[in-house]
Amino acid sequence: MSTIERVGVSLEKDLLGQFDEFIGKQGYTNRSEAIRDLIRDRLSQEQLANPHVEAIAGVFLVYDHHATKLADKLLHLQHTHLLQVISSTHIHLDHHTCLEMIILRGNVGRIEHLANHMASLKGVKLSRIALMTPGGKFG
Amino acid sequence: MSTIERVGVSLEKDLLGQFDEFIGKQGYTNRSEAIRDLIRDRLSQEQLANPHVEAIAGVFLVYDHHATKLADKLLHLQHTHLLQVISSTHIHLDHHTCLEMIILRGNVGRIEHLANHMASLKGVKLSRIALMTPGGKFG
Amino acid sequence: MSTIERVGVSLEKDLLGQFDEFIGKQGYTNRSEAIRDLIRDRLSQEQLANPHVEAIAGVFLVYDHHATKLADKLLHLQHTHLLQVISSTHIHLDHHTCLEMIILRGNVGRIEHLANHMASLKGVKLSRIALMTPGGKFG
Amino acid sequence: MSTIERVGVSLEKDLLGQFDEFIGKQGYTNRSEAIRDLIRDRLSQEQLANPHVEAIAGVFLVYDHHATKLADKLLHLQHTHLLQVISSTHIHLDHHTCLEMIILRGNVGRIEHLANHMASLKGVKLSRIALMTPGGKFG
Repeated sequence: MSTIERVGVSLEKDLLGQFDEFIGKQGYTNRSEAIRDLIRDRLSQEQLANPHVEAIAGVFLVYDHHATKLADKLLHLQHTHLLQVISSTHIHLDHHTCLEMIILRGNVGRIEHLANHMASLKGVKLSRIALMTPGGKFG
Repeated sequence: MSTIERVGVSLEKDLLGQFDEFIGKQGYTNRSEAIRDLIRDRLSQEQLANPHVEAIAGVFLVYDHHATKLADKLLHLQHTHLLQVISSTHIHLDHHTCLEMIILRGNVGRIEHLANHMASLKGVKLSRIALMTPGGKFG
Repeated sequence: MSTIERVGVSLEKDLLGQFDEFIGKQGYTNRSEAIRDLIRDRLSQEQLANPHVEAIAGVFLVYDHHATKLADKLLHLQHTHLLQVISSTHIHLDHHTCLEMIILRGNVGRIEHLANHMASLKGVKLSRIALMTPGGKFG
Repeated sequence: MSTIERVGVSLEKDLLGQFDEFIGKQGYTNRSEAIRDLIRDRLSQEQLANPHVEAIAGVFLVYDHHATKLADKLLHLQHTHLLQVISSTHIHLDHHTCLEMIILRGNVGRIEHLANHMASLKGVKLSRIALMTPGGKFG
């Protein structure tokens, strides 16, 4: 935890009014908190553009659970890459289809490489990746 | 499972060569599979632009686990929204920071509304949302 | 022009230090200006998610200028849609390839519909669309 | 222009039906053309992730045209960066607000650096950048 500073920001009254309305709808009860979240999000995006930065990622795979040996191949990939696989959650979407949600920690380049490889396997129909910087970096 | 059709696609030789090289690097062993994935991804993105379509989502929250009553508030929000919360995974990133990964099912508009609300809570530092169409729609 | 208000924002010292370093690299000489830009950008993105909101857009089309009647078709489309075409700039990229940059004003849904239609024409190889809210809305 | 090859692609009947419906709405009259566009778009995005690759970009700036010396500063920046400024289009949005649309050619890293710098100037309210690979690379 770092110490708190208070800074002054000048804004046009109209802009401030629109912002307050927007953050109110989102659920914020505090304007500072909303501005801090904008700042953290922007810094995080900037950092994640660097393939060598350490990140935490959620990889989602929608796949056909009848696909031959797919579960084995996914497991094998997770074990042979230089990444820390933190957890894996398996969900049955319907009779044919599963969702696998894998949380990884490692550098951005390696995470994307592994995610692309998993997405390319026969039987995987859709994939998404959500990248984040571990929050501890922002005090 | 639906029946398979075979269609012919005309491509410039250079474009085909670049595509084959690209998908090889990603891990594809089969060109049809790579083209199917492009098509599924494009259709999925189009569908998810509609706030009324049913989706499955992973919501990621990086938060300060010392924040007062945050865990209670997150749990309360999950119980009071008209969404099916499928699972929730909690991971300790460091002494101060946690990652919560919540899988939701429901329409896109409601998912985004709940995700924004959770992101707005004091103590939540970063949030990401990954939206997918349940794969069963694509046969 | 609206009147200026000054508001106080509380931030962790570490977060503020990282933000100041980041905006310095981008070229900002003033922290308020950087925060205002974050706020305007977030509000603008939110508004543009509504297909009925008025926007201004740049549509970029990379195309093969030997494609039969493509220029005529592009011109025809611009004249038959309920959008204000503000300007069109044509650039020769190489012997075969042109870039057309069309600035449009109208609601988001109609802009995207027209942009998709132009992108679908035979001979158009790549397309991009950049959407903005007219800045006057933010005082 | 390179020679044309014809390749076969296997697709589930349902997926093909959905794709045909989608591309029909977009304006395509030819399925091969739609698949080629998907492939070009994916390859182009991949290439643009490399900061050293040559790109063409449209930079949009919405700005307050009463801002002191802003036009001079924008012009100065365009002349002092190692980028080819191809064209610049100026549009009056309302009494206070202008849109400047600048087309640049150069490597991705430099384009983004210049665009960020222009966006950081006092008086610039919103900015967007659209990056493309010059189409000639795809035959």
